[in-house]
Amino acid sequence: MQYLTPRDRPALEALGIEGWAYGFADRVRFYELDALNHVNNVTFLRWFETIRVAYLQDYGLTSYAHDDTDPQIVIRAQSADYFAPMFQNESYVLTARTTLVKPSSFIMEYAAHVDAQVRCAGSAVVVSLEQDGKTRRAHKPEAVALMIDKDGAATEGL
Amino acid sequence: MQYLTPRDRPALEALGIEGWAYGFADRVRFYELDALNHVNNVTFLRWFETIRVAYLQDYGLTSYAHDDTDPQIVIRAQSADYFAPMFQNESYVLTARTTLVKPSSFIMEYAAHVDAQVRCAGSAVVVSLEQDGKTRRAHKPEAVALMIDKDGAATEGL
Amino acid sequence: MQYLTPRDRPALEALGIEGWAYGFADRVRFYELDALNHVNNVTFLRWFETIRVAYLQDYGLTSYAHDDTDPQIVIRAQSADYFAPMFQNESYVLTARTTLVKPSSFIMEYAAHVDAQVRCAGSAVVVSLEQDGKTRRAHKPEAVALMIDKDGAATEGL
Amino acid sequence: MQYLTPRDRPALEALGIEGWAYGFADRVRFYELDALNHVNNVTFLRWFETIRVAYLQDYGLTSYAHDDTDPQIVIRAQSADYFAPMFQNESYVLTARTTLVKPSSFIMEYAAHVDAQVRCAGSAVVVSLEQDGKTRRAHKPEAVALMIDKDGAATEGL
Repeated sequence: MQYLTPRDRPALEALGIEGWAYGFADRVRFYELDALNHVNNVTFLRWFETIRVAYLQDYGLTSYAHDDTDPQIVIRAQSADYFAPMFQNESYVLTARTTLVKPSSFIMEYAAHVDAQVRCAGSAVVVSLEQDGKTRRAHKPEAVALMIDKDGAATEGL
Repeated sequence: MQYLTPRDRPALEALGIEGWAYGFADRVRFYELDALNHVNNVTFLRWFETIRVAYLQDYGLTSYAHDDTDPQIVIRAQSADYFAPMFQNESYVLTARTTLVKPSSFIMEYAAHVDAQVRCAGSAVVVSLEQDGKTRRAHKPEAVALMIDKDGAATEGL
Repeated sequence: MQYLTPRDRPALEALGIEGWAYGFADRVRFYELDALNHVNNVTFLRWFETIRVAYLQDYGLTSYAHDDTDPQIVIRAQSADYFAPMFQNESYVLTARTTLVKPSSFIMEYAAHVDAQVRCAGSAVVVSLEQDGKTRRAHKPEAVALMIDKDGAATEGL
Repeated sequence: MQYLTPRDRPALEALGIEGWAYGFADRVRFYELDALNHVNNVTFLRWFETIRVAYLQDYGLTSYAHDDTDPQIVIRAQSADYFAPMFQNESYVLTARTTLVKPSSFIMEYAAHVDAQVRCAGSAVVVSLEQDGKTRRAHKPEAVALMIDKDGAATEGL
C-alpha cells in the first residue's frame, strides 16, 4: 500500500472505490483507539479534517499562509455516520469531494474505506472568511473550476 | 464558577440555560486550540463525548466495567452545528439530554453555552450492544425511567 | 472537590501536598484513556502543558497575545516519570513550580497527585523567545519576582 | 517519499540517517499544530509512541492481543529534547532503537529527522508486565535477539 500520496479518480477506481476523485491511504495508529480498543468515534472527524486540509491546498482554496492572501476556512456544520468499527493497524483509504459550491461556502463529503467498504461517512458545510474570521470571502475561481471539473460539484449563485 | 460538578435543571436555569436537566462547567485548554488560535471544530465533539460518558454513568446506563454487567455503548451517527468561535481560557457550560429512547438505542442532544448563548450544538444516535460489540442489548429500566423523568425523553417501541 | 480554580501553598498543604505553591484539581476524562484502559502516558505531558500555560499567565510571563507585547514561550526539553497508573474519572491535583530562573529561560517541575501520592512527575526546560521564534527575550521582572517569592526558585545570571 | 512502511538500516543510511536500524516516514498533519502554528511539543511524544508500538510488534515483543499470550508494555519514564520547530505538511523520518535490554525492561531512543537533521530526540524506559499490570514478565527471547542483532543493544542481567 502506498500511503499518504494523493490518488485521483482512476487510482481510486482501481481500488474498487467509485465516485470519488480525491483520496489517500493511511493506517490506524495506537493513539486513535479508545478504551473500547477500537477507533474512537471522534478520530474519524479528525481524519476528515486531515483530508479536507490536504484537499483545500491541492485544489487551491488556501495555502494556509494565515495572511490576507488566503481566506480563513471554517466549519459551520458537520456530521458522521458509523457503519462498522475499525481496529489497530488497519489500512484505510480516505476520500473527499465537494458536492455543492456557493460563492463563499461549499458542502463536502468524506468517507473512510477498508477493502472498498465504507466504515464511516461524513459531510461538512465549509465557509470561506477573511482573516478577521467574520466577513465572507469569495473562493478563488481556479479552485471552484477544479471542484466542478474533478468532483462534478453542483453550483448555486455562481 | 464551579467546574465539572453536575448541575441539574434548576442550577442550569439559574445560569440562564433553559431546557436542559444535565450539565457541567468547564474551561478551554490550550491543547484544544488549533493553528487558527480558536477551539478546533473536532474539540467540540470531544466535549460532547465527555459529557455523554458522564451522563451514561450518572443516569445508570453503564458503569464502564467493560464486562457483561454493562452494555457497550457506541455511536452510530452524530452531527454538530457551529454558531460562534471559542477561545483560550473561555469558561463554558456543557449540557446533554436524551430526546428519544428506543429499546436498545437513543438520541441525544448536546450544547456548549457561553453566557447562556449556544456556541456549538450537537446530536448523536447512541446504540447499546453486548460486550461482543454486535448484538443489541436492552437498556437498564432505571436508566430509561430517568431519561423520561429528568429529560422528558419521548419513547418508541418501549 | 473544587476543580480548575488555582490553589496556593496553604490550600495545597491542606490537601497533604507539600512543597508546591501553585496547583489545581482536575478529573480524568474518557478520551485520556488508551486501549489499555488507563491514562495514556502522553496525556500526562498534556496535563503538564495545561498547568504550565495557566502558570505562565497567572505569574505574568505571557498573556498569550501572540504579538510583540508577549514573548513566545517554547519547550527545549522535558521528561516524565510514571509511578502508578491512573484510571477513568479519577480526581487528581496538578502542581507546577519553577526551580531555577535564568535571564531568558527557566526550569519547571510538575506533578499529578492522587490523595497526596504522586502518580506522575515531570520537568521542563522552558525558553522565552521573541515572536520571531528565534531571538532570546528577557522575562518580565514581575514574573521573575513571583517565581522567586512564591516558588523559592533559584536564580542564575540574573 | 514512501510513507509509513518500515525502513531498515541500509534504507535509512540511504537517506543520510546513520545509527538506526528501524524507521518510517510520515508527514505533519494540521491537528498536530498548536496555536503557535508549529508542531506542539506533546505531538513528538505521540510520534515516539506510534513508532514504539510498531517496533514492539515488528520485533515480536507483543502482538497487542490484550490477553495472556502477550505482556502489557508500559512506560516508566521518558524524555524529549527539542532542537528545531516543525511545521504543517513537513515530511519527516521517525527512528527507534533499543540501547539496553534487561530481563523485563529496556531502554529505547527515538528521533524525528528532516533532511537528515534531528528536530527532536527522545528516550523511554519501557517495562514488560503481565496482563495484571503489576507483575514483571520476561521478554520473548526472539525479540531480545532482534534487539541485540539489529540495534546492537547492550544487555544487563540476561
